[in-house]
Amino acid sequence: MSTTVKAYGTQAADLPLKEISIHRRNIQPNDVEIDILFCGVCHSDLHTARNDWGGSKYPVVPGHEIVGIATQIGTEVTKIKVGDKVAVGCIVDSCRHCPSCQKHLEQYCHNGMTGTYNGKDKHLGGHTFGGYSERVVVDANYVLNVPENLDLAAVAPVLCAGVTTWSPLRHWKVNAESKVAVIGLGGLGHMAVKLAKGLGAHVSLFSRSPEKTQDALDLGCDEVIISTNPENMTAVQGKFDLIIDTVPYDHDLNPYVATLDTSGTLVLVGFLGSLENSVFTVPMVLGRRSIAGSLIGGIKETQELLDFCGEKNIVADIELIQMHQINEAYERMLQSDVKYRFVIDMSGFKNENPQASEA
Amino acid sequence: MSTTVKAYGTQAADLPLKEISIHRRNIQPNDVEIDILFCGVCHSDLHTARNDWGGSKYPVVPGHEIVGIATQIGTEVTKIKVGDKVAVGCIVDSCRHCPSCQKHLEQYCHNGMTGTYNGKDKHLGGHTFGGYSERVVVDANYVLNVPENLDLAAVAPVLCAGVTTWSPLRHWKVNAESKVAVIGLGGLGHMAVKLAKGLGAHVSLFSRSPEKTQDALDLGCDEVIISTNPENMTAVQGKFDLIIDTVPYDHDLNPYVATLDTSGTLVLVGFLGSLENSVFTVPMVLGRRSIAGSLIGGIKETQELLDFCGEKNIVADIELIQMHQINEAYERMLQSDVKYRFVIDMSGFKNENPQASEA
Repeated sequence: MSTTVKAYGTQAADLPLKEISIHRRNIQPNDVEIDILFCGVCHSDLHTARNDWGGSKYPVVPGHEIVGIATQIGTEVTKIKVGDKVAVGCIVDSCRHCPSCQKHLEQYCHNGMTGTYNGKDKHLGGHTFGGYSERVVVDANYVLNVPENLDLAAVAPVLCAGVTTWSPLRHWKVNAESKVAVIGLGGLGHMAVKLAKGLGAHVSLFSRSPEKTQDALDLGCDEVIISTNPENMTAVQGKFDLIIDTVPYDHDLNPYVATLDTSGTLVLVGFLGSLENSVFTVPMVLGRRSIAGSLIGGIKETQELLDFCGEKNIVADIELIQMHQINEAYERMLQSDVKYRFVIDMSGFKNENPQASEA
Repeated sequence: MSTTVKAYGTQAADLPLKEISIHRRNIQPNDVEIDILFCGVCHSDLHTARNDWGGSKYPVVPGHEIVGIATQIGTEVTKIKVGDKVAVGCIVDSCRHCPSCQKHLEQYCHNGMTGTYNGKDKHLGGHTFGGYSERVVVDANYVLNVPENLDLAAVAPVLCAGVTTWSPLRHWKVNAESKVAVIGLGGLGHMAVKLAKGLGAHVSLFSRSPEKTQDALDLGCDEVIISTNPENMTAVQGKFDLIIDTVPYDHDLNPYVATLDTSGTLVLVGFLGSLENSVFTVPMVLGRRSIAGSLIGGIKETQELLDFCGEKNIVADIELIQMHQINEAYERMLQSDVKYRFVIDMSGFKNENPQASEA
């Protein structure tokens, strides 16, 4: 029924990650077995490992920016061949029949999508384990094709950070006429800048840090607005069609809402919690402005994004690490000390203890 | 340059309205002179008369739900003839060249639309005077045609209460597949119910008052949800595509956001101020839900609404009053004691002191 594989995870919120053994199901008719080459490191990995949001199930094996090679395919799989470059993002299953699933919005599955880690494992029971691992077995409907021309390590963050910003760019119909602003220049923010530029939009960055200005311009920003500078803020009143707010903590939205054009939307992709600053409705009513939220993206739009990245040659800016460096990487992420995403090179981990996979 | 006409207004925030004289400009090439037959009574009238929002200019002559007969037309007016049934809403001018005006969204004019009252009068200087008056002169671009089949008194509230709810119904693309909810059953709310039903939507009313249930069903609601009843609220979690929130004071939006379907929007049309209850972002992010605002409607969509009302035979439920009853009507409005809109019959006022128009 299952095979034991090496993984990297933690048994408790206050323990570091270390090598552990987990089970992967034997391949089913619609499954793909993937030899994992790279796995991006998302803030959600850290939050789940440390149970910051509550509800974590242990052991936690994080990782939902998975890139690898298909090594086995089930008898009914047609869209993927053995040897294909493939990817898995945040979703490995969903109910497939609710209105959201029918609309290719599996991330909003009414019956609860199955997260790539810490989701409910429908096959083996217990919970799912993510990409900090040698191999993974995933239903082919949730496996993506990676364009040939893209760097396999640098494409990994597209699977979560990328699609999290892509989905609102597409939902709110950003095009070459659009003015887009991004708040925050981390993993999500730097992807938002690249993707909005890829769509032809005018792209501005809101930042509290003047020292990020050159980096932002290098990434393609047309403009950097220092949000603590009142003149900077006044100059962009009523300017933006869409603001992608990647800030992962509570902050006052009112100064940003005022920079939306008529009918513009500020979309939160990073903060889950309560907005302690009172939201001022006057600019919303007087300019039909909206505050919205958005969660990752569906499988179909993730594939569209990968194809778009292939066409435009867009990947993340990454820092490659080895699996055993993950605890140190988490500490650096908490200091925002990464440009702009850590990606784990799994080859060293797989080769260093070849006997462990036999356990 | 101008003519003196009788009007009803107030010289200060703490004085009742009474008969006064005002000036109307002589007709210009693109103007229409309107003999006012009926004028709806909006909460904004009361708030402006009493300077509740600050910035009122005195004398205040309220009224922006104006219905009457065209009595003179300028030499360049082609769309209106003398004798036509016409209407004027909240807007009598705008810059006509900004992006909003170009998109027929004069209510969001970047250079500031000219309100029907308390706006800046570009012709005579000073400020504009509204429909509590014998006559008004308005640029033909801002004059609407009233369908022949509609009751002239009952159509008046369509000009503000109607279009304020129509504009979001159209912007968020409500159709026969949509589930719409309305919060509050006053002047705006009862129009929202009728118009959403006219578009074929399933319509629910949120109300704190069980005693309004039968009235809501009589107006066409498919369902009444008592918002203070937890079971009622639980039963509609995730249900609505659009919620039109007509409540004119601060209230907690979180219980309503939770009743939006994936990608749904709650649109505020009644409250200008700060939301003192923290907005909880989790249902927004996890379901791509939005909180938005919306202001009245543009001239083009107001005409589309009037045509739609003609086709569907939709008008407001009104209580007809005489001009001299306006102060008493304001007191009753503050008690929500009206089903659902007061409309002033101007005929008595015009006839009772015929000499005053000669002053």
